[in-house]
Amino acid sequence: MDVVIGCDVGGTSIKAGLFSPDGELLARRSAATPALVDEAAYAVVTDLLASMVAEAGADSVVGVGIDTPGAVRADGTHLLHYNIDIDVAGLRAAVSRAFPGAATCVMNDGNAAAAGELWQGSGRGTSTFCHLVLGTGVGSGVVCGGQVLAGAHGCAGEIGHMCVNPEEERRCTCGRRGCTELYASATGIMRSYREECERTGAEARDLSRGAVAVLEAYVDGEPAAIFAVEAMCEMLGRCLATTASVLDPDAFVIGGGVSAGFDVFGDLLRERYRAHASEGCEDTPIVAASLGNDAGIYGAAYGALRLV
Amino acid sequence: MDVVIGCDVGGTSIKAGLFSPDGELLARRSAATPALVDEAAYAVVTDLLASMVAEAGADSVVGVGIDTPGAVRADGTHLLHYNIDIDVAGLRAAVSRAFPGAATCVMNDGNAAAAGELWQGSGRGTSTFCHLVLGTGVGSGVVCGGQVLAGAHGCAGEIGHMCVNPEEERRCTCGRRGCTELYASATGIMRSYREECERTGAEARDLSRGAVAVLEAYVDGEPAAIFAVEAMCEMLGRCLATTASVLDPDAFVIGGGVSAGFDVFGDLLRERYRAHASEGCEDTPIVAASLGNDAGIYGAAYGALRLV
Repeated sequence: MDVVIGCDVGGTSIKAGLFSPDGELLARRSAATPALVDEAAYAVVTDLLASMVAEAGADSVVGVGIDTPGAVRADGTHLLHYNIDIDVAGLRAAVSRAFPGAATCVMNDGNAAAAGELWQGSGRGTSTFCHLVLGTGVGSGVVCGGQVLAGAHGCAGEIGHMCVNPEEERRCTCGRRGCTELYASATGIMRSYREECERTGAEARDLSRGAVAVLEAYVDGEPAAIFAVEAMCEMLGRCLATTASVLDPDAFVIGGGVSAGFDVFGDLLRERYRAHASEGCEDTPIVAASLGNDAGIYGAAYGALRLV
Repeated sequence: MDVVIGCDVGGTSIKAGLFSPDGELLARRSAATPALVDEAAYAVVTDLLASMVAEAGADSVVGVGIDTPGAVRADGTHLLHYNIDIDVAGLRAAVSRAFPGAATCVMNDGNAAAAGELWQGSGRGTSTFCHLVLGTGVGSGVVCGGQVLAGAHGCAGEIGHMCVNPEEERRCTCGRRGCTELYASATGIMRSYREECERTGAEARDLSRGAVAVLEAYVDGEPAAIFAVEAMCEMLGRCLATTASVLDPDAFVIGGGVSAGFDVFGDLLRERYRAHASEGCEDTPIVAASLGNDAGIYGAAYGALRLV
């Protein structure tokens, strides 16, 4: 049985999935992410993948795709990785040795998630769409004409770091100001909520469960949560409208942990998008992603499969 | 001899070019634009094209491409044309009757100019680039993977109407606020200059020759012109940096009448782009277009040629 592996290497955990070539998820593994800079650490990854393959009884691994934060150029060279200690070339070489004969590829994590949604998720059958991952940060990927764009420097689809508020004083993790991520990431939503609670003297809810608690407070009509969710939708609406002026995509697909609350904020996001979008593309569908946190492993596997 | 025609239908004039299939411009014609809504007016266009073909002694017109303002969907349907009175379907039918056997296509003017630069201009050999036409407005087109993007609603590459200044109070021709066009079109540059002259009590130069007079005043160190050109470069720099966060193109190509002064403002534009671009794509080349006002006829011809 031919199989393909998708391996999503994040700052905290490594997730791996084993797929049939037609996109069925056969098995899944995860592990904590070590500093991926030496052979011992690479072996953590290759052992994880090998045990998954062995247990599934697969006899031929035709491809292994790896996705990771940072800019990855079309040729697979890697730069600008902020939250992870990784030597991508070394890891890829170790994977190639462990699975001789398998095609390997390296992708940016936002691009992989977009590719996953294209292959088996909400983007299926859609020629051109933008996929956003609203998580700790805002990752994103652009699919254009059925291809995930890498860009000249591996920086295409970085709309989480699009400036949507030039007047902003606070800095984003990327060092610049007014990025979408400042308002629409889980971190950003929680920060907006806390700051508004402080400003108004309201007592903040326990946010140990993350941004979902702010969305619950929004449903309950808590003013600080209304402020945070409105800021998120306004800034994300600007970001999507600006993206539409470049690409005029068939759809926007919203994923990541925050998208679990899409039913709560989706209509407001559509309303803010429409307020900023140019006539002609104001009705572009904005939908929730369907693969959730698995989008990356699907997309990494798909990337490798396209090389086979 | 096989030939292909490109016909650029603007608000004031119609420009037509006759090309060999390998892109040599063999002849050229122009005429004032009538209200293109009836057979008599369509005949103005078809007679112009037929006389150009006859004089060149061409015996086989294989394609006729037409470009015009407004959004043109991939299927050729036309909407949102603000500054021109035109029935595109009627004109196209008249052209088809006048040149039976020729492939015909209709394109947005910004997209045609981008296609022209791709075929025979500064974009030649470049896979992904954005082309801007700084004229009365700011037209633009996006080439991605060697294809001009139309977009789901014919609105791709409308970055002249990207909002780069959400705090702006004045409205753009499109009805929204803070569009690139407000600052970087010839009209916008002249308006910035005049307003700054009024504000400071300086005497404004005669602008009957257009924005080029403001660029000359900038070279002479006139404060109001410095204000206008800095505003133009700041806002256009934001627009290109934002576009890079979506596409990370290989290059930006600047055309239109204002680009005649590219030597004057190019370095400042590059500096403002770099200030806003994300790490990784801050060195994207920004170059002047090489086809000038002929980009549209080249691109319309190229569009038709690709259907042959």
